[in-house]
Amino acid sequence: MAHILITSGPTRQYIDPVRYMTNGSSGRMGASLAAAAIAAGHDVTIISGPVQVDYPIEARVIPVITTEEMLAACELEFPSCDGLIGVAAPCDYRPERVEGHKIAKTGQPITLHLIETPDVVATIGAKKKPQQWVVGFALETEDARFRALVKLEKKNCDLIVLNGPEAMNAAENQVEILDRAGTSVALLSGPKEEVAAGIMQAIQTRLMK
Amino acid sequence: MAHILITSGPTRQYIDPVRYMTNGSSGRMGASLAAAAIAAGHDVTIISGPVQVDYPIEARVIPVITTEEMLAACELEFPSCDGLIGVAAPCDYRPERVEGHKIAKTGQPITLHLIETPDVVATIGAKKKPQQWVVGFALETEDARFRALVKLEKKNCDLIVLNGPEAMNAAENQVEILDRAGTSVALLSGPKEEVAAGIMQAIQTRLMK
Repeated sequence: MAHILITSGPTRQYIDPVRYMTNGSSGRMGASLAAAAIAAGHDVTIISGPVQVDYPIEARVIPVITTEEMLAACELEFPSCDGLIGVAAPCDYRPERVEGHKIAKTGQPITLHLIETPDVVATIGAKKKPQQWVVGFALETEDARFRALVKLEKKNCDLIVLNGPEAMNAAENQVEILDRAGTSVALLSGPKEEVAAGIMQAIQTRLMK
Repeated sequence: MAHILITSGPTRQYIDPVRYMTNGSSGRMGASLAAAAIAAGHDVTIISGPVQVDYPIEARVIPVITTEEMLAACELEFPSCDGLIGVAAPCDYRPERVEGHKIAKTGQPITLHLIETPDVVATIGAKKKPQQWVVGFALETEDARFRALVKLEKKNCDLIVLNGPEAMNAAENQVEILDRAGTSVALLSGPKEEVAAGIMQAIQTRLMK
C-alpha cells in the first residue's frame, strides 16, 4: 500500500490574456494509471492540467493551469508520497514576457521569445529520498530510445516510459519501459487501461518493496 | 427559414508535432447559437475547431483543426447559406515555419516568428452577396467598443457582438450587439443559452427578410 503522486494532462503557458501554448494531452493515460494504482490498493493524488477526462473518484485531484503551478503542487505533495508517476505533458516553453492585453493584429509578423519552464520530473527527481521513486514519460519523435535514456538519467528517474506523439488524445497506446541500465523492462500496447495496468505491474515489481 | 453557417470553438496552430497555440474557446456559445437558430426553425451548419461541447444533433458539424481549414470549409459552405455567425475564436497567428520534429530542449531560449493567419470572417465578409449577411464577434480587452466597430467595418459585418475574455469557457456571457451605424442594438447578459436566443432575435429582426 503506497501513496502515489501522478501528474497528468497538459499545462498552458499564456502569451496574452486569450492566447496560450499547450499540447493535445488528454489526461487519459493519467486517469488509467490512477485507476490501475487504485485497483492495486494504493492511494492516489493527481496533479492535473486542464482536461475533460473523468479521474477515478477515489483519487484526490489538484487542478493546475501552468507548468510552474504543477511544479509547486508537486513540491508540496511529493514529500508525503512514496513515488511519482510523471505522465503529464507540461508545456516546456513559455513566453519570456506575457502581454497584459490581447495582442492586436497589425498585419505584421510578431516575434515571440520563449524560455524553458522548470522541468517538473527533473526537479522532483533531484530531491527524492532514497526510499522514494520517480517514473518519467518521454514522448519522442526522433532517436526515441536514446533520448528517453538521456531523460531518465537527467531527471533521475527509476524507470522511464517511452511513447510517441500518436499516444496523445488517443484511446490506445504503445509504450516501452526502460530501466536505469537501459534494459527494456516491458513492451506494452493496447487500450490505455491495459497499458496502464502493465506499467503499474512493472512499478510494483521493480520499485516497491 | 434560413440556412445559417456558424463557426465555433478555437483553432490550433502547431509549432511542432506536439506543441500548438490555441485559446480557451469552448464552443458553448456556438452550440447555444445553433440551438437558438434551430429552435427558430432554421437549418444550421457548424464549422468547429476541436471542442468537447455537444452540438445539437439537428446541426451538421464539420470538424476542423487549423484556421486555414476553418476558412476553406467556410468558403465551401457559405455560398449555399443565407448568413454566417462567426463566433469561433480562430487562432490568428501561426509560426512562420512548423518544425517537423518535436523541438528538443537545450536550456537555451528559442525565438518563434509568428505571422497572421487569414481572417475567416473578413474573407467571407468581403465575398458576401447583397442578400447574405455576416455577424462577427469581437473579444476585446482594451478600447472594446472602438475596436469592435473597427472590426465590424474591416470585416464587412452587418452586426458585431462584443464580449470580453471572461466569456471564454464560461457558462455565462455578457455581450453588446452593435450595428453598422455604431448603434448599440442590444445589451444581453446571463446564461449563454439566453444570450444566444437574444442574438438570434436581433439577427432575425434586423437581417432576415
